[in-house]
Amino acid sequence: MRYRKIPEETVRRLPVYLQGALHLSRRGGESTSSKELADLIGVEPWQIRKDFSYFGDFGTRGVGYSLGSLIGRINKILRLDTGHKAALVGVGNLGSALLAFPGFRVYGFEIVAAFDIDKRKIGRRKAGVLIEETTSLGRLSARGIHLGIIAVPETASQDIADALVKAGVRGILSFAPRRIVVPRGVKVITIDIAMDLARLPYYVAAG
Amino acid sequence: MRYRKIPEETVRRLPVYLQGALHLSRRGGESTSSKELADLIGVEPWQIRKDFSYFGDFGTRGVGYSLGSLIGRINKILRLDTGHKAALVGVGNLGSALLAFPGFRVYGFEIVAAFDIDKRKIGRRKAGVLIEETTSLGRLSARGIHLGIIAVPETASQDIADALVKAGVRGILSFAPRRIVVPRGVKVITIDIAMDLARLPYYVAAG
Repeated sequence: MRYRKIPEETVRRLPVYLQGALHLSRRGGESTSSKELADLIGVEPWQIRKDFSYFGDFGTRGVGYSLGSLIGRINKILRLDTGHKAALVGVGNLGSALLAFPGFRVYGFEIVAAFDIDKRKIGRRKAGVLIEETTSLGRLSARGIHLGIIAVPETASQDIADALVKAGVRGILSFAPRRIVVPRGVKVITIDIAMDLARLPYYVAAG
Repeated sequence: MRYRKIPEETVRRLPVYLQGALHLSRRGGESTSSKELADLIGVEPWQIRKDFSYFGDFGTRGVGYSLGSLIGRINKILRLDTGHKAALVGVGNLGSALLAFPGFRVYGFEIVAAFDIDKRKIGRRKAGVLIEETTSLGRLSARGIHLGIIAVPETASQDIADALVKAGVRGILSFAPRRIVVPRGVKVITIDIAMDLARLPYYVAAG
């Protein structure tokens, strides 16, 4: 079964549902309702039901969703049921933080390669990962790496994306707050920290 | 006019619309349609029209939205039409990256204070900002600071959030991938980097 026509917004919410379900499961729960899940994560219940309907109905009216099958189902849809190797480009402050970040493991991600242009960094290890030269990315896909993380200055981000695609990377997580152009079949997700901060003042009444 | 009943998901999309509108405006555009904006940012046109309807209709059927008034309107709704001062807690790799990050200025944000517990860092400056001692946050609100950014290890994040709230902060951006409990009237937005990465494999077909 292919899930190709799912809206981006639904896909974006799936990891949020997954985290909510994992949270409830850790607290000892066995099942949940769209209402409980909605309250927990701050989405409308109808939204949850609509999102889940894209994958066939896996809840029972009046009973709710089994947390176990919910977690398994979302993991499978998001293809998180197998591990994923990622390459990091840019081992500055942000890149170093990402290498040390324990949160990736939750979803089966592992940064197995790191690249930088700074000669003083190349050949050294950071958080156990050898820093290699950015100019020789090689065939990352041959190393089982299909994901790339871009943590270079904004001006270099498009060149790095091009190089990653050439190296066989199919999915890119970018921290550069700009539009990155990639060929069809390659997906870019941008984390724009300032854009996330931008919705905070809305909630902050004048003090 | 208060905009209190707007769904979280709509508020989350407003900065995305804002960036799309700014992009079109920089390219010389004067007006846009929900279709054009939708194609640009990857949202459904009906979603844009629905989101905008919360603020009263500011488009004209067949003509579209004036980019100037769209940008002004969203800026006003999000309260980005005035500057915002933020305090950063945790000047490790991630915190250092945030201090040097140029993207905050786009939305009128400025990190004016930084705190750490490492004695070797306290009293020094990073990206022009003096690093102060975390244990003495003082009254941040008296310094015009109402936003806090948490870049400390996950285990310390709740304590730091408590301290920020006590110091008068009303909005918190947290990079700790865990639930942070705050009193009513305080808003926390969590950037969970792993969760953003978690939707990437969905788009990456087996290589």
